[in-house]
Amino acid sequence: MTLSASPSITAAILAIGDELLSGRTKDKNIGHLADLLTLSGIDLREVRIVADEEEAIVEAVNALRGRYTYVFTSGGIGPTHDDITADSIAKAFGLPCIHDPEAMTLLAEMYRRRDMEFTEARQRMARMPQGARHIANPVSTAPGFIVENVYVMAGVPQVFQAMVDAVLPQLQTGAKMLSRAIPCPYGEGDIGTALAAIQKAHPHTSIGSYPKYDGQRFSTELIVRAREMDTLDAAAQAVEAMIAQLAMAKTVPNPSPDA
Amino acid sequence: MTLSASPSITAAILAIGDELLSGRTKDKNIGHLADLLTLSGIDLREVRIVADEEEAIVEAVNALRGRYTYVFTSGGIGPTHDDITADSIAKAFGLPCIHDPEAMTLLAEMYRRRDMEFTEARQRMARMPQGARHIANPVSTAPGFIVENVYVMAGVPQVFQAMVDAVLPQLQTGAKMLSRAIPCPYGEGDIGTALAAIQKAHPHTSIGSYPKYDGQRFSTELIVRAREMDTLDAAAQAVEAMIAQLAMAKTVPNPSPDA
Repeated sequence: MTLSASPSITAAILAIGDELLSGRTKDKNIGHLADLLTLSGIDLREVRIVADEEEAIVEAVNALRGRYTYVFTSGGIGPTHDDITADSIAKAFGLPCIHDPEAMTLLAEMYRRRDMEFTEARQRMARMPQGARHIANPVSTAPGFIVENVYVMAGVPQVFQAMVDAVLPQLQTGAKMLSRAIPCPYGEGDIGTALAAIQKAHPHTSIGSYPKYDGQRFSTELIVRAREMDTLDAAAQAVEAMIAQLAMAKTVPNPSPDA
Repeated sequence: MTLSASPSITAAILAIGDELLSGRTKDKNIGHLADLLTLSGIDLREVRIVADEEEAIVEAVNALRGRYTYVFTSGGIGPTHDDITADSIAKAFGLPCIHDPEAMTLLAEMYRRRDMEFTEARQRMARMPQGARHIANPVSTAPGFIVENVYVMAGVPQVFQAMVDAVLPQLQTGAKMLSRAIPCPYGEGDIGTALAAIQKAHPHTSIGSYPKYDGQRFSTELIVRAREMDTLDAAAQAVEAMIAQLAMAKTVPNPSPDA
């Protein structure tokens, strides 16, 4: 599907943490950032979740940063021994990982204000690749950082979200994707053939079909996406006409077992 | 960290679907399967989410299936034009994608019982790589399938979960990982140095530290994991002793701002 002639702004998310893979923590950051990227006209193309392991992080960062406009990471920038994201990002870029002087000052001042010791562990939170730019952390001071097109942020959702809020206004955004949701009381098997024909007739749209199951029968949510309102309208009208035609053909929707 | 001398059973999850990347659908399958794999002693090592695009699916499947014992996919096996997982998996394995005769029979019978037309779109749900084995679908009949070590399942959570239940008993499982959660009222900055020393002294365990933030201060959940109970006990006792020592040093936990 060709949605736009202009080159799109793309992104990947890399969530880092053993706790996400063990199931102990259910990720909240991916869905949050996915929503905001879509609103900004940035196409999220891929997500990966890897363990707190240097080799896995380095490989994923290097695969993703060459392929997409932006890479956003979450997790592994705290003060404990299993927080190895800063060192791994430095390794991915072939940069030394240092105690960033500006971050050391920020943290030292914050701990002094709170009359708390600036321990060796806490100093780990100032580590980042040499020359990285900071991402402000209004929640708990320790900054995230940016190297080229890679944005390294915390895993704790409140901190991650605050960092995302700081970062989004700096990003190059794409043409916003327009979309319209059309609820459909029929299962995908009832509409699949007609929907494929509509997609073919409206090549500058992307029509997604998302089955829902309420425990008894399937219905469908249809999402029409386009970058131009006229294009969107035309495809959406075709979808609505198809549903109306089906409704005339069936007085009552069948209990549809289509997955 | 060396957790076991025996080779571990590993897995990856590949969730497929534009709706996951746009944020419209918040994935529920990854966390569900992550929990069950952990309980089965299977190490989930990596998760990827990709769009409904053949090239992206083929590349991810081929990267993951060579690296892990098992690959589990979700999504894209329904009857509409954007359901291209079966064709993409076939392409990844260099196999023809066919209307599987047994699946055609199952589906034709089900639609006949329900007095519904077995449309061309519905027949798409019988597509799978030649020679694939079925994964039963007690919810809506259309089967998932298995090619070598790749398990292809539906995206609708109720169907995905039923397919996972059908598949799990067939898998080779690993030595179950034992774990103990130890709540810690202090932030990571308070415990980081001591915790790193405990990890070093207990190399056959994996000690994870997960910061929590309640809007005012950070606390930590510490998870000690090991394959042997003795090993687990020794490390957990060391962690508990560290927390007790900190509690003696501070009468009241500091409001800790450690991310």
